[in-house]
Amino acid sequence: MADVAVIVGSTSDIELAKRATSILEEFGVSYETRVLSAHRTPELLKDYVKDFEVRGGKVFIAFAGYAAHLAGVIASYTTLPVIGVPVASSVLNGMDALLSMVQMPEGIPVATVTINGGANAALLAVSILSTFNQTLKEKLLKYREERVRKIEEANKNLR
Amino acid sequence: MADVAVIVGSTSDIELAKRATSILEEFGVSYETRVLSAHRTPELLKDYVKDFEVRGGKVFIAFAGYAAHLAGVIASYTTLPVIGVPVASSVLNGMDALLSMVQMPEGIPVATVTINGGANAALLAVSILSTFNQTLKEKLLKYREERVRKIEEANKNLR
Amino acid sequence: MADVAVIVGSTSDIELAKRATSILEEFGVSYETRVLSAHRTPELLKDYVKDFEVRGGKVFIAFAGYAAHLAGVIASYTTLPVIGVPVASSVLNGMDALLSMVQMPEGIPVATVTINGGANAALLAVSILSTFNQTLKEKLLKYREERVRKIEEANKNLR
Amino acid sequence: MADVAVIVGSTSDIELAKRATSILEEFGVSYETRVLSAHRTPELLKDYVKDFEVRGGKVFIAFAGYAAHLAGVIASYTTLPVIGVPVASSVLNGMDALLSMVQMPEGIPVATVTINGGANAALLAVSILSTFNQTLKEKLLKYREERVRKIEEANKNLR
Amino acid sequence: MADVAVIVGSTSDIELAKRATSILEEFGVSYETRVLSAHRTPELLKDYVKDFEVRGGKVFIAFAGYAAHLAGVIASYTTLPVIGVPVASSVLNGMDALLSMVQMPEGIPVATVTINGGANAALLAVSILSTFNQTLKEKLLKYREERVRKIEEANKNLR
Amino acid sequence: MADVAVIVGSTSDIELAKRATSILEEFGVSYETRVLSAHRTPELLKDYVKDFEVRGGKVFIAFAGYAAHLAGVIASYTTLPVIGVPVASSVLNGMDALLSMVQMPEGIPVATVTINGGANAALLAVSILSTFNQTLKEKLLKYREERVRKIEEANKNLR
Amino acid sequence: MADVAVIVGSTSDIELAKRATSILEEFGVSYETRVLSAHRTPELLKDYVKDFEVRGGKVFIAFAGYAAHLAGVIASYTTLPVIGVPVASSVLNGMDALLSMVQMPEGIPVATVTINGGANAALLAVSILSTFNQTLKEKLLKYREERVRKIEEANKNLR
Amino acid sequence: MADVAVIVGSTSDIELAKRATSILEEFGVSYETRVLSAHRTPELLKDYVKDFEVRGGKVFIAFAGYAAHLAGVIASYTTLPVIGVPVASSVLNGMDALLSMVQMPEGIPVATVTINGGANAALLAVSILSTFNQTLKEKLLKYREERVRKIEEANKNLR
Repeated sequence: MADVAVIVGSTSDIELAKRATSILEEFGVSYETRVLSAHRTPELLKDYVKDFEVRGGKVFIAFAGYAAHLAGVIASYTTLPVIGVPVASSVLNGMDALLSMVQMPEGIPVATVTINGGANAALLAVSILSTFNQTLKEKLLKYREERVRKIEEANKNLR
Repeated sequence: MADVAVIVGSTSDIELAKRATSILEEFGVSYETRVLSAHRTPELLKDYVKDFEVRGGKVFIAFAGYAAHLAGVIASYTTLPVIGVPVASSVLNGMDALLSMVQMPEGIPVATVTINGGANAALLAVSILSTFNQTLKEKLLKYREERVRKIEEANKNLR
Repeated sequence: MADVAVIVGSTSDIELAKRATSILEEFGVSYETRVLSAHRTPELLKDYVKDFEVRGGKVFIAFAGYAAHLAGVIASYTTLPVIGVPVASSVLNGMDALLSMVQMPEGIPVATVTINGGANAALLAVSILSTFNQTLKEKLLKYREERVRKIEEANKNLR
Repeated sequence: MADVAVIVGSTSDIELAKRATSILEEFGVSYETRVLSAHRTPELLKDYVKDFEVRGGKVFIAFAGYAAHLAGVIASYTTLPVIGVPVASSVLNGMDALLSMVQMPEGIPVATVTINGGANAALLAVSILSTFNQTLKEKLLKYREERVRKIEEANKNLR
Repeated sequence: MADVAVIVGSTSDIELAKRATSILEEFGVSYETRVLSAHRTPELLKDYVKDFEVRGGKVFIAFAGYAAHLAGVIASYTTLPVIGVPVASSVLNGMDALLSMVQMPEGIPVATVTINGGANAALLAVSILSTFNQTLKEKLLKYREERVRKIEEANKNLR
Repeated sequence: MADVAVIVGSTSDIELAKRATSILEEFGVSYETRVLSAHRTPELLKDYVKDFEVRGGKVFIAFAGYAAHLAGVIASYTTLPVIGVPVASSVLNGMDALLSMVQMPEGIPVATVTINGGANAALLAVSILSTFNQTLKEKLLKYREERVRKIEEANKNLR
Repeated sequence: MADVAVIVGSTSDIELAKRATSILEEFGVSYETRVLSAHRTPELLKDYVKDFEVRGGKVFIAFAGYAAHLAGVIASYTTLPVIGVPVASSVLNGMDALLSMVQMPEGIPVATVTINGGANAALLAVSILSTFNQTLKEKLLKYREERVRKIEEANKNLR
Repeated sequence: MADVAVIVGSTSDIELAKRATSILEEFGVSYETRVLSAHRTPELLKDYVKDFEVRGGKVFIAFAGYAAHLAGVIASYTTLPVIGVPVASSVLNGMDALLSMVQMPEGIPVATVTINGGANAALLAVSILSTFNQTLKEKLLKYREERVRKIEEANKNLR
């Protein structure tokens, strides 16, 4: 059973989703990836969302571009946290997807992250899971320390 | 049986929807109004959309603000034309709703009209119905002539 | 006689219009393509629009970039539905064309679709025609089923 | 015969247009005001534009909000200079009207001024007329000097 | 000990934060409210964030307007989930705060919700806490059912 | 003596300005080109503007990108018509230059045209000059007819 | 002799400028206020700027709305630091003024602060002066401490 | 000891920062460059900022993209002037970074310059330092004269 469901609205978003799944793997978080469209496959999407929750899944990550309804529609079928990644696939550079995700009306929130921000979506999922998982929390701290170390190194190279 | 379904995403949009229904009444087009949310009542919405089509309805008009998924979600459940009216209910003046409606990804179009443009949505619905209804077409022509007459009158008053 | 008139505001939009006409062909919907500019050929445009309606045409699709007046000007000469495709040909990525099409003042609507969304414009035209054409409706349903099938296949490949 | 035609796309713009006509009166420039819509009265608009040019008119000023096609459509029927004033009448604060006016495609320019900038439109018309009218030029210089004087006075009051 | 820390960047945001805290109370989630500024009180903010985590807190909610750094700065001091509410307090209607929150660079995510969306922030916090708390999950389901019921009632009133 | 002064704010805009000067040459309108910056060479700019007017020049065309003050500063030193061409040289795609030109405060207008619209700037200059020059007017009419002819030809090729 | 020149582009900005001058007074920094327009009084502006520098002035603060050229034009006449405050006086909420100030082309910078941010402009001027003035630096530190104290008090009131 | 600290939020901004440091070198202004992130290395950043001020540094220049908190966070730890350079590293072309820097709430200003404007940031730093350094002021004047000379030369080449 997977903890995180990574759903892309289009096969063209699969590459971008790998920025999220590679982070999840790095943290040892189980996940499954699906291509499911809010508009083209509404029934499949609903069935999958409900099934994932029943099977004990914990967090959704949704990638979508254009009028990105995917995350909101997922959220309408579950009470689990839904993380939305706006994808800059249209000519509007992701501003359309950002507003379509973040501006959810009162009652059904979507946790929106950076446009094209697959890594941040995964890190947010890990953070959510870590609230009740000490091992994950320690991994997060190490991940951050490693990044501090890299910046210290960069400064050494600068001088 | 109604030809047009007027769906608002929130009770706060009912007033705005009356700009559409008053036009439909003026043209003698039958309609029904519902409050249905893509996020809070996804099942009710789906059932209503499918039922409306089965009962012989012809056109949907959807009013929604914020991340306005309503029109797109309706369109995912029907092949009937769906007209979307972005509502300027958030602080972003309707730009969020506009992009959430018009930027539909390939495969499922939404016929988007002016922000807060209830009258234009109704006129578009009449225009669609008039493609196979000569009486409606004549009413549309008269409606336009009446507006020309009003402008001519305004010019007389100006001088 | 054609059911759909596909009008481009500039020869540079012809390629983009093919995304619409290839869909129309797939659905067996008759169409004709014209290059006509609201600004450079206002008389030709008016004559063509009126003639197309007289000949029994049903729907207009207009492609235009920059200050995209084409769809609105067509709509001023006909009561048939006019679908507008904003084209991202200027440096503003189509935001100029989108607002010039969708923000039509009260009285004359334009059914605006996705920026560069030729396929969606054609699908909307098919949807409008299908309201009184059972064969087209069935083709639309099959088109959608085919797309569901493709997504199911993509998910099989993912695993 | 009037030198300047002031055309508003809607009766609601008449008040704003007075900012232009009061300046024209101040400079003794003859003008006539009309309400003419690019979409609701395309034939009246065309006839008026062509007639105004035949009668010896020199400059057009067009006020329009929303998808403001008025100035561009006027320009398609005349080679006289057309000054466009985007009006902030929609919820988008005039950004829709601005882009619909200024982003004219190559071949037919519109001289666009400040959103709601009736006074600037009139001053631009005066400036254009003054290129071949020494009296107007002198009035323009005096107008500017008067404004310098007012600022000098404001500074005296400040101290 | 509180599960949720609600931090406002300015005393003027306290009213808005009550939309969040009233939801938290409705769900029986413990919380504490603080006024802490990323720029004016960086040390106090850091100390509070670290202390809240040590004391066993689970989720942060940050309200901020203008260049809203608050959520990002909190996230730099904790691995707990940080929910950001962009506040429309400047003349830019919250677009500045939205981009300052959601566009976090890779490594430190902020879970951004609707501009001024205090209720959605609280519901997201509840959703996160509910991933390991069955009672909260049931309350969330009841909350949603209640909202479905309200919409059903609205429809009865409509007819 | 030249009728039109074409001023670019930076040597990098010279190529773009050729779209204007080639049109001016086609119409037989005399012009001179200068590189003059509102910020780097304020004195040279002022002297040139005043001298051009004294020598009998009629119209200014200014090309500038970024915070494009060039057209406004020229207009502050002359009562002649000043046409502004916003240049998309910064990362903001010319939106910065557009607003810096068109949003002139009351008193000093700039006739702003399409972003990067060198040809439209030249056609507007020709239009202004043609208000008192019958030969230019006839050339403008021929120019437009030629463009109609090209579109008619394009339609023949389409079929 | 004053250290800071506070220049407003219009008498309507004087009230806003008082947010800056009240801060300057609080810090005991000498200043003088002028109304000077880049477009209506270019010569007065130039003379004042050059004179202020000759008299030993140290910093300029410029308030302007619309196409806000004031700060850039000041900077073209002096090598002293110029702080720009974009004013939200047009319908575009200060976005026009912001881009007209901050997007200065290479060579002549303007230190731009928050839209309508008179207080921040004054604090930046104080900060610049404090780089060589220990007394001012200490006042700045006290100003900040006072604000920390106020936030601590607000938190006490919250509990 | 360096007068200017040039801080980049990411190693990917080092190249852009060289536009600033090459100007500082041209003016003989001492500087040091660091990679320090407001989010990944908050403690290192704070320590560096405080140390730089203690050591007698005078001005900070901060380069950051996305939700660019770097300049604001630096300003929260020092009373020295902080110059912010928004970097166009995300898909939003630097509009996110611009608003995240310039829209600082009241109390802590950031002197924001052109997006990607490394040279302007350096020139502003030189200008600030020159307020108490006559040699630098003369160098600034020479730098400007040199640029006037280049434009004069460009005009010679044009003719």
